[in-house]
Amino acid sequence: MSMSPSALPFDDIRNLVRQMPGPDEDAVAEVRAREVQLTKPAGSLGRLEELAEWVAGWSGHGRPRVARPVVAIFAANHGVADKGVSAFPASVTRQMVENFSAGGAAINQLCIAHDLGLKVFDLALDLPTPDITEEDAFDEANCAATMAFGMEAVSGGTDLLCIGEMGIANTTVAAALLAALHGGEPGDWVGPGTGVDDEGLERKRAAVAAAVARVKGTKDPLEVLRRVGGREIAAMAGAVLAARLQRIPVIVDGYVATAAVAVLHAMDPEALDHCLFAHLSAEPAHGRILQIMGKTPLLDLGMRLGEGTGAALAAGIVKAAVATHSGMATFADAGVSGKADA
Amino acid sequence: MSMSPSALPFDDIRNLVRQMPGPDEDAVAEVRAREVQLTKPAGSLGRLEELAEWVAGWSGHGRPRVARPVVAIFAANHGVADKGVSAFPASVTRQMVENFSAGGAAINQLCIAHDLGLKVFDLALDLPTPDITEEDAFDEANCAATMAFGMEAVSGGTDLLCIGEMGIANTTVAAALLAALHGGEPGDWVGPGTGVDDEGLERKRAAVAAAVARVKGTKDPLEVLRRVGGREIAAMAGAVLAARLQRIPVIVDGYVATAAVAVLHAMDPEALDHCLFAHLSAEPAHGRILQIMGKTPLLDLGMRLGEGTGAALAAGIVKAAVATHSGMATFADAGVSGKADA
Repeated sequence: MSMSPSALPFDDIRNLVRQMPGPDEDAVAEVRAREVQLTKPAGSLGRLEELAEWVAGWSGHGRPRVARPVVAIFAANHGVADKGVSAFPASVTRQMVENFSAGGAAINQLCIAHDLGLKVFDLALDLPTPDITEEDAFDEANCAATMAFGMEAVSGGTDLLCIGEMGIANTTVAAALLAALHGGEPGDWVGPGTGVDDEGLERKRAAVAAAVARVKGTKDPLEVLRRVGGREIAAMAGAVLAARLQRIPVIVDGYVATAAVAVLHAMDPEALDHCLFAHLSAEPAHGRILQIMGKTPLLDLGMRLGEGTGAALAAGIVKAAVATHSGMATFADAGVSGKADA
Repeated sequence: MSMSPSALPFDDIRNLVRQMPGPDEDAVAEVRAREVQLTKPAGSLGRLEELAEWVAGWSGHGRPRVARPVVAIFAANHGVADKGVSAFPASVTRQMVENFSAGGAAINQLCIAHDLGLKVFDLALDLPTPDITEEDAFDEANCAATMAFGMEAVSGGTDLLCIGEMGIANTTVAAALLAALHGGEPGDWVGPGTGVDDEGLERKRAAVAAAVARVKGTKDPLEVLRRVGGREIAAMAGAVLAARLQRIPVIVDGYVATAAVAVLHAMDPEALDHCLFAHLSAEPAHGRILQIMGKTPLLDLGMRLGEGTGAALAAGIVKAAVATHSGMATFADAGVSGKADA
């Protein structure tokens, strides 16, 4: 990746957040008008109907479609991995990126199953961010540049962006970020991640406590990201902001992806209105941050893998919801008697 | 459909229930042995991992696959519709069957989205069963023949059977059946169905109360089905029993399909071990019967359409789960370091 020192400063990011468009109300109205004509009892498809409205509102298409869904995986390494906070060695981040390229990972199979594109963004894997228990993760220029890199990721053309990540030790970084943004005890934000034992969990709690203590008093969400974030986390925040500006609905994967977008939510509570939260992760703190942000996840399958796997499953449901809305016959088309005829 | 008077009597059905095979433990063991070698933290795909085991155990294939998934919709009419228990006229059953054939219904779009076959079984739509508030739905020969017809439905070749239904007034029949099997007040089992108003809901309660009073003291589950069931309900029970005997995993759709298979569960609590319950319907009593039977639905999307729509969505997830299990690389294949190397 390029890390140009001439990248956006945080003020430019703040300006972009202020420019975020709202939903296209005409497109939503068009979906609602068609929805009640479809050959089924009104409301009987439940959340599928809401998903069709959501895609319409955030894509601006009154007859919504999902033609180019993409899963974007952002991969990065973290200095805090040296503190023994993960069950896996840091070398696994690169090995898994290679596994994504070779088609061997869970996300590859899920993308095939639901016909989703897959893009993997390797964020300077050989340069872990400094250990956030001791040093800031970035200077402002590098943090903003990483967000800008994430913004670019959207530019290849997609109409449904699924956000996922890979990064050994990044549940610890996510926990530190969320504890710094929302307070609470380190234990409120720390969980087993890929499967640490009790001692590993205690090391995670200690790392989060140290990182949070180091940035005590830092209130600005972008400053929190800069000080206790990570590359994939900054890039995901950038990608989700860019998607909003380009009218692309987003599906957010699990705990780490949610932590990334929580930075945007802390800047503006409406910043995630174009985001669907794919699933409730088995990582215990995921439910906590979703509740704080007032978001209801689509699925609850006990998953905790990352890689965008939950988002890919949710994308299969969103595609089906949109196809159902757009492809079904109306009562008039099909000669089916409506409720009023009863 | 043929309604041969020489069809199986109930004793033959009871014999088939006694012959039900258990899961293939070797296939389950093969899945578990492979699962821990896949390039992800053990257990991190949560319920997807359980689904791969479930397909393996009930299909008998240790490297599970879903190559010919089929949604079977059983459609029938009900005399009790004359009691004003539905928001839609009884003519809608046939109109919707024609809509299924023409490709205009929600289930058609969901089958396209997840590449599922669709079969529609028209169960003598011109001959509604007698109004169960006044008369038994069947005599024994006809009830058993309808179950046998449902058994035949499986014989066309499938390796994942999704069970759905269409039948104006059939949530009332389902409620009567479940109240007769499990007791409780009529209001415990009655809900808005396709969307009746408060007066319609009161008529549903009254119809269920009348049907249950008429069969008071009937304990045998097949007798309950015969007296307060319906054709699609008997056929679904038959199909699910046949699937078990032929080692085909089943996905059960919503409230009415669940009521149908509850007859088998009342005969033998292990009779539904090969069934996945697709989703929690918005019909309030669905959660009640699932809880009684100890079943946890896969999805909770506020759906209440029937037609197999919830089962079709769940089938998309089952297909993805099986593809993930069978298609992923192992740690050894991919050269990824495992947890033990940490």
